[in-house]
Amino acid sequence: MSQITLNQGERIDQLFSTDIKIIQNKAVFSYSIDSVLLSRFPKIPAKGLIVDLCSGNGAVGLFASTRTKAPITLVELQERLADMAARSIQLNHLEKQVSMVQDDLKNLLNHVPRSQVDLILCNPPYFKATETSKKNLSEHHLLARHEITTNLEEICQVSRHALKSNGHLAMVHRPDRFLDILDTLRRSNLAPKRVQFVYPKMGKEANMLLIEAIKDGSTDGLKILPPLFVHKDNGDYTDDIFEIYFGKKDHHD
Amino acid sequence: MSQITLNQGERIDQLFSTDIKIIQNKAVFSYSIDSVLLSRFPKIPAKGLIVDLCSGNGAVGLFASTRTKAPITLVELQERLADMAARSIQLNHLEKQVSMVQDDLKNLLNHVPRSQVDLILCNPPYFKATETSKKNLSEHHLLARHEITTNLEEICQVSRHALKSNGHLAMVHRPDRFLDILDTLRRSNLAPKRVQFVYPKMGKEANMLLIEAIKDGSTDGLKILPPLFVHKDNGDYTDDIFEIYFGKKDHHD
Repeated sequence: MSQITLNQGERIDQLFSTDIKIIQNKAVFSYSIDSVLLSRFPKIPAKGLIVDLCSGNGAVGLFASTRTKAPITLVELQERLADMAARSIQLNHLEKQVSMVQDDLKNLLNHVPRSQVDLILCNPPYFKATETSKKNLSEHHLLARHEITTNLEEICQVSRHALKSNGHLAMVHRPDRFLDILDTLRRSNLAPKRVQFVYPKMGKEANMLLIEAIKDGSTDGLKILPPLFVHKDNGDYTDDIFEIYFGKKDHHD
Repeated sequence: MSQITLNQGERIDQLFSTDIKIIQNKAVFSYSIDSVLLSRFPKIPAKGLIVDLCSGNGAVGLFASTRTKAPITLVELQERLADMAARSIQLNHLEKQVSMVQDDLKNLLNHVPRSQVDLILCNPPYFKATETSKKNLSEHHLLARHEITTNLEEICQVSRHALKSNGHLAMVHRPDRFLDILDTLRRSNLAPKRVQFVYPKMGKEANMLLIEAIKDGSTDGLKILPPLFVHKDNGDYTDDIFEIYFGKKDHHD
């Protein structure tokens, strides 16, 4: 077994429900619940091609790898994040299934064949480039969170060209961008089919959404899935989230 | 007090949380939970003009009347339903506040001044004219449920002309029409601001949605409100729904 080098500030986090270990660095980028939920949201095809766009340290694609034998291509622009992802691939002995491409996602078709991809997963930058104060963010966080090096329009257009007809795009995003997302999907001929809203707790507004769209799909029949609550009133994770992080409880108390 | 005549098949239902009584006729039209939820969804302006479009037997507008002193105009095309609503207005002694217009909603501006309405409530026909088997429906139910005499486009266009700038349209509808609704609102310059999905019970897909849009509003900042569940696992109403129908419980057990 080859030795994995951890750089300064890095640690290894494990998603216990999958046995996958991810190299994290809070100063640079850490995956969070968004990535975990996205990796579980769509039906993962058993075979075919899967792409994780804006893969960061690779969490989404690596989590998804446990549910399929299909090859998965991670695409991340930032060198330091791509390097963490490449080492996490090694750490999990997934070199045969998961490959890392460090490039601008607009060059995706240099790495995967046009109209051949079955599923694209994407946890994109959530905020418009103009939004919020950016002065306290590291460059890594800035690019990961704000639409500076890419944006919804580009992600959807690139996805449209890479996906096969009836291929799926699954994305995690924020409810205040929902109308934007629907418009941008439509301009790319991606038909929204499933939406799940995620609420921090009961009685609060949604702060996250998961959406799955189908290339060349009909625009009928959108489904609004059961809501997902992250925390109980006492602050603990709900059973749904506990199970996603740690696997099924043996018994309910 | 004048005597109210009940026609054959009619009965009086009371929404206990409001004291409002509504003349119902199952063979013709009965209000259901959609109307109750819609009447409680938007902020009801204390004064100004309120319109209930597609008012049926008047349930939405009559329920809303308990939360404001503003005049409310009910608009319903079907004579028999409009007649039930007119008698319910009398039954509740609301002749000074609530008025009944029996007309096609496309003639709304013959009854309220252009660009002067503060709030429009609408529980429209849910189904496209082409959808589902219609042969078992009475004509009354057919017109109330299918887009035969009106449709989303017309409702939104009429609302746009009747509402003042920053006036609100609140609608109840079905999630499988959600994309349609968003498009149609936009074409009418009505910006969606609040959406609440209603689920029959935990773990099920949404089967109803409430949406509020603002004329000439910006398209930023859509809020997805906390989800509403109608039934508990055992089939009873949830506390939220119980309270809406019967008022606040004195204590929780």
